[in-house]
Amino acid sequence: MGEKFTIPKGTRDFTPVEMIRRNFIFDTVKKVFSHYGYVPIETPAMENLSTLMGKYGEEGDKLLFKILNSGNYLAGIGPEEINPENPGPLTQKIAEKGLKYDLTVPFARFVVQHQNEITFPFKRYQIQTVWRADKPQKGRYREFFQCDVDVIGSHSLMNEVELVQIIADVFGRLDIRVVIRLNNRKILAGIAEIAGARDRFTDLTIALDKLDKIGLEKALGELKEKGFTEAEVEKIMPFTAITGTFEERLRWLEGHLSGSETGLKGIAEMRSVFTRIKFLRLEEICELDITLARGLNYYTGTIFEVKATEVEIGSICGGGRYDDLTGIFGLPGVSGVGISFGADRIYDVLLALNRFPGHDTATTRVLFVNFGEKEELFCLGLASRLREEGISTEIYPDPDKLKKQMKYADQKQIPLVVLAGENEIGSGILTVKNMKTGEQMNLTPGQLVNFCKET
Amino acid sequence: MGEKFTIPKGTRDFTPVEMIRRNFIFDTVKKVFSHYGYVPIETPAMENLSTLMGKYGEEGDKLLFKILNSGNYLAGIGPEEINPENPGPLTQKIAEKGLKYDLTVPFARFVVQHQNEITFPFKRYQIQTVWRADKPQKGRYREFFQCDVDVIGSHSLMNEVELVQIIADVFGRLDIRVVIRLNNRKILAGIAEIAGARDRFTDLTIALDKLDKIGLEKALGELKEKGFTEAEVEKIMPFTAITGTFEERLRWLEGHLSGSETGLKGIAEMRSVFTRIKFLRLEEICELDITLARGLNYYTGTIFEVKATEVEIGSICGGGRYDDLTGIFGLPGVSGVGISFGADRIYDVLLALNRFPGHDTATTRVLFVNFGEKEELFCLGLASRLREEGISTEIYPDPDKLKKQMKYADQKQIPLVVLAGENEIGSGILTVKNMKTGEQMNLTPGQLVNFCKET
Repeated sequence: MGEKFTIPKGTRDFTPVEMIRRNFIFDTVKKVFSHYGYVPIETPAMENLSTLMGKYGEEGDKLLFKILNSGNYLAGIGPEEINPENPGPLTQKIAEKGLKYDLTVPFARFVVQHQNEITFPFKRYQIQTVWRADKPQKGRYREFFQCDVDVIGSHSLMNEVELVQIIADVFGRLDIRVVIRLNNRKILAGIAEIAGARDRFTDLTIALDKLDKIGLEKALGELKEKGFTEAEVEKIMPFTAITGTFEERLRWLEGHLSGSETGLKGIAEMRSVFTRIKFLRLEEICELDITLARGLNYYTGTIFEVKATEVEIGSICGGGRYDDLTGIFGLPGVSGVGISFGADRIYDVLLALNRFPGHDTATTRVLFVNFGEKEELFCLGLASRLREEGISTEIYPDPDKLKKQMKYADQKQIPLVVLAGENEIGSGILTVKNMKTGEQMNLTPGQLVNFCKET
Repeated sequence: MGEKFTIPKGTRDFTPVEMIRRNFIFDTVKKVFSHYGYVPIETPAMENLSTLMGKYGEEGDKLLFKILNSGNYLAGIGPEEINPENPGPLTQKIAEKGLKYDLTVPFARFVVQHQNEITFPFKRYQIQTVWRADKPQKGRYREFFQCDVDVIGSHSLMNEVELVQIIADVFGRLDIRVVIRLNNRKILAGIAEIAGARDRFTDLTIALDKLDKIGLEKALGELKEKGFTEAEVEKIMPFTAITGTFEERLRWLEGHLSGSETGLKGIAEMRSVFTRIKFLRLEEICELDITLARGLNYYTGTIFEVKATEVEIGSICGGGRYDDLTGIFGLPGVSGVGISFGADRIYDVLLALNRFPGHDTATTRVLFVNFGEKEELFCLGLASRLREEGISTEIYPDPDKLKKQMKYADQKQIPLVVLAGENEIGSGILTVKNMKTGEQMNLTPGQLVNFCKET
């Protein structure tokens, strides 16, 4: 069979090394989330398309993976319904389900469906796969993980502060230096107001969002293309040039947004968040950045974006406050705030910085060489004892040549190899080879346990 | 909006309580697997349909969830290709991908694709979702988890013994009493041979497999329907009535299968496995059961099935030895042995026996009541200190009425509530309410930390 079997483009296999590294990231975030009282939920991979369609814009609808109805999906379909120029109407009939596109919409559906079982404020995290029929490219996959943490049902700015703490805690544990950029959509609304462009708020946020990538000149150019006058652009310009500390920027904004009630509200919110951040001594990693806009229209208050300072890469975490998550599903007025950790990028950062922990307890610590049936029994007993002490242990299953067995230990990076042949079994003293140093030791089983525990 | 949004039938949302319980099961099996040197892998949810089709029989092909090609899937399709009577040919053109149906076939594909990166014998585990367009019913879902552990590239029976150890270890930790039924397909082949029905081996295994459910008489009746003669059935009957210990049964079989080389080989394998099981003092939970057949045709040696003894439910774990996992993908001669844990049934068993651990560290231990802005800062500092000690802690985000905050603690089953008002902040002595006993204590922050650690 010469045929080559591969996986669909944009999807990935995860090898053991990749899994252990990925689990290191997920275990870290889960631990932090649970320290702050967040609890996990999961929703199905498939949702009804009626739940998903129309929630991500026209472009998003196209990127949904749709699942063919099971059974004879063509039954009852007339030839007149099949139009290769416009497959949309047929799609609706032959595909009722789709794979989830993000975690936010299914979460909103979950909250509405389970509203009577949920204790509000509801602090949940969710780490699951999502799918997008996007063009695959470096670092962009069709099947990838999202890792969201949200608290809903509370307006308090304490939640924003807590998310900053969580970000600091997660990246502290991952040993990644970061800067947390903060802004408030009400401040942006204030700027639009001051510039007399309240009706073009979305255009303004889109242009500001790009500033980082395309530079000031081009971003202002885009505004002009969108119909902003020279005078309007001139009013916006000073805001893009603010400097100073968090507090200095807030004071500057207070002066320049005094004409906008919404703007002043945004500043007050930022000040309240900042007071607590300062109390927690987290102000050094936080930055008030007025050019941070976050494209998504549903954000209404504080917005966050996190960048790694030691590696050139896009944002590794981001999110914000939204005032109406569940309105689309018939439950209006539920406010929340949440962030999403970019697991794939965090993986790349840790790899680039070589900061994955070297010694991982998920891998085998001790391998017993297999010399044959008689020795096997001795090793079986001893291996059980090591495992009872929490030491991951293997017995090589076949009495293969010693060279092959040592190669196995080497490739699996097992640090200790025990040679228990006839002599060792007779004397009760094991020959133990340290694979890193090449050194051989003579240890009793008890000494081996202690040696494993100490190293 | 009166519309009701639900999830596709046969799928499930997992609430926090369900997640914490499920994670207890998964964390336990993962820990055991890694103690024995197994490493995790993951494969994509989607596979190319060319990888999946034809691997699960005609019925299986129908149960695959197929994903509509993205973009205009109808482009280039002529009306003559659309036949509502026979949608198969169209399906091939409009759906190239499908959701995985089990973990075995994708694992085989993985091994072939990554054969040069893998260290053999390859000990891997895999816990992932699979999908089947089956008719949903109680306990049977269209989207569910499989939890497989296999070692491939080794013929040694030590692997079979290790899987028995793993089963004992997993269910020991989960506090579920089990019996492990063992058999060997070579013994079954021997019985078919002795009965003169070597050509109807599959019919024999199917009938034996049902014996448990439909009883001896009906099972033998099925054999007759399949063309087994009275004389053949009479030769098979004694095998279904074996009694005695594991060793007694082996000896009985040796006498009755002496005419079948294959049968004797199966007995020798079982004896070899049993010697080690006995040495490990696991024989009390193991049973040689000649009526265990396991339907799947790819098993060739030892087969396993695990039942809980305290609850009436189907098997909660099962598997066996196969001699040609990867042949379908062009890599012949790779032998392996593996088992699969039934997470959903294990969940049901633990629930029925009320054996989920009550105190779960993933949930909040301490809640600080929110009295307002001034008190918040004090609580923020103290909560950070508790979290640094590994104690999951929340501050209620809003200065709501005390009653509402206490209700939150109650519903989230948070055991300790700290009331730090003006007096407490002044004196440095916290009022701490034990939510289980209703008792109030006065503790310094240091005493609170110690109290949490001790309880």
